[in-house]
Amino acid sequence: MTGTLIGVGTGPGDPELLTLKALRVLESADVVAHFAKRGRKGNARRTVEGLLKPSVVELPLDYPVTTEIDKAHADYIGAIQSFYAESAARVEDHLRAGRDVAVLSEGDPLFYGSYMHLHVRLASRYPARVIPGITAMSGCWSQAGLPIVQGDDILSILPGTLPEAELIRRLSDTEGFVIMKVGRNLAKIRRALAAAGKLTGAVYVERGTMDDTRTQDLADKADDEAPYFSLILGPGWQAKPQGEAA
Amino acid sequence: MTGTLIGVGTGPGDPELLTLKALRVLESADVVAHFAKRGRKGNARRTVEGLLKPSVVELPLDYPVTTEIDKAHADYIGAIQSFYAESAARVEDHLRAGRDVAVLSEGDPLFYGSYMHLHVRLASRYPARVIPGITAMSGCWSQAGLPIVQGDDILSILPGTLPEAELIRRLSDTEGFVIMKVGRNLAKIRRALAAAGKLTGAVYVERGTMDDTRTQDLADKADDEAPYFSLILGPGWQAKPQGEAA
Repeated sequence: MTGTLIGVGTGPGDPELLTLKALRVLESADVVAHFAKRGRKGNARRTVEGLLKPSVVELPLDYPVTTEIDKAHADYIGAIQSFYAESAARVEDHLRAGRDVAVLSEGDPLFYGSYMHLHVRLASRYPARVIPGITAMSGCWSQAGLPIVQGDDILSILPGTLPEAELIRRLSDTEGFVIMKVGRNLAKIRRALAAAGKLTGAVYVERGTMDDTRTQDLADKADDEAPYFSLILGPGWQAKPQGEAA
Repeated sequence: MTGTLIGVGTGPGDPELLTLKALRVLESADVVAHFAKRGRKGNARRTVEGLLKPSVVELPLDYPVTTEIDKAHADYIGAIQSFYAESAARVEDHLRAGRDVAVLSEGDPLFYGSYMHLHVRLASRYPARVIPGITAMSGCWSQAGLPIVQGDDILSILPGTLPEAELIRRLSDTEGFVIMKVGRNLAKIRRALAAAGKLTGAVYVERGTMDDTRTQDLADKADDEAPYFSLILGPGWQAKPQGEAA
């Protein structure tokens, strides 16, 4: 009997935004793996603090390099691929020994989550299931009280790493939008929003649902400093002439 | 003292996908409002069966017309606007009397949820907060074990009601995609996917996370019948030449 691989979404940061299913799995898990930068307790692991059983075996999977460097660079790709292969092998050792492994994943495991790198390597050979989590974007628009899309709106989820012209093109051609990976891209994003006529109405949320969160209209934000855990939200329905929601 | 308006995401259908925060609010709520088609117990209400306290006051908000008819039609717009205004007034009566009102919302309240029609009418005048929920799309891709987007992927969330040419254009110009509101639009969606070269790889999920759910490759689905609660998913990362996830 082999163990089961379980991707567990831990949500955007507030421990109360765990699902009942995630809580049940975490309270009984024998092995819990979690990705983090070396020397840090990752956000997902902090979210479940106090929930794991005392005898749990923790399997920290520490990124060898920052995830914020140029991803097209061969050194980065090589290092990160080796890291994911090694991480999968460490998880596989437990599965082969018959132990279930819960892999913590900030937000939702299959939505920009590191868990998917284990999933694609192991899920065809071992039983696997995925427990969805509240995404960071849901946490952010809920906290901001911002209806994001309704009716027949289109929602575009865009990485802030896109080239400026590409951001302008896509922001001009959507109703709702979410810009992820803001971090050091904020100045460029702000220019793109202005060029697309969408700076007014755009909302900046930093560290959504966490204790030290901050929300403001992007147009009112005086600087272009933003941490990795920040998003920009653009509600779709406001732009519609019929204003269905109003 | 007025009451608080609370939008509560009940997730995609599986009661175990409620968050701890939603459970806490629902177990203590004095008034619980829920949208449904007349004569039906809505999906959100079914999800929380057995959780509400015996003394709860339920406020069913029954749609006057089907939500699947042509939304551009003046009769529809008039009827639905009156309905939302009336619903808001019924909720407001409780708020004014000092009672908190929890409004159930399938999936996430501010992501295509009916709750937002109450929110935009009441949240500026009464205390309001929103508890995010697992979206139907997260429930579906988790159940299907389908990594949807990673790294710098773009995700486009498209209503199946879009004209065919517009669907083709947008499907051709994205990495990951989710097509909502499949229902009677499936034949058109299938043609659009084929024209965009994305029929292969597209996954059809019906009634995600519910007891009678079904998942299959869309190309293998023999007919074009689909219930309202169905989605089509297209994973972004598969299309990337560098195949980061592999």
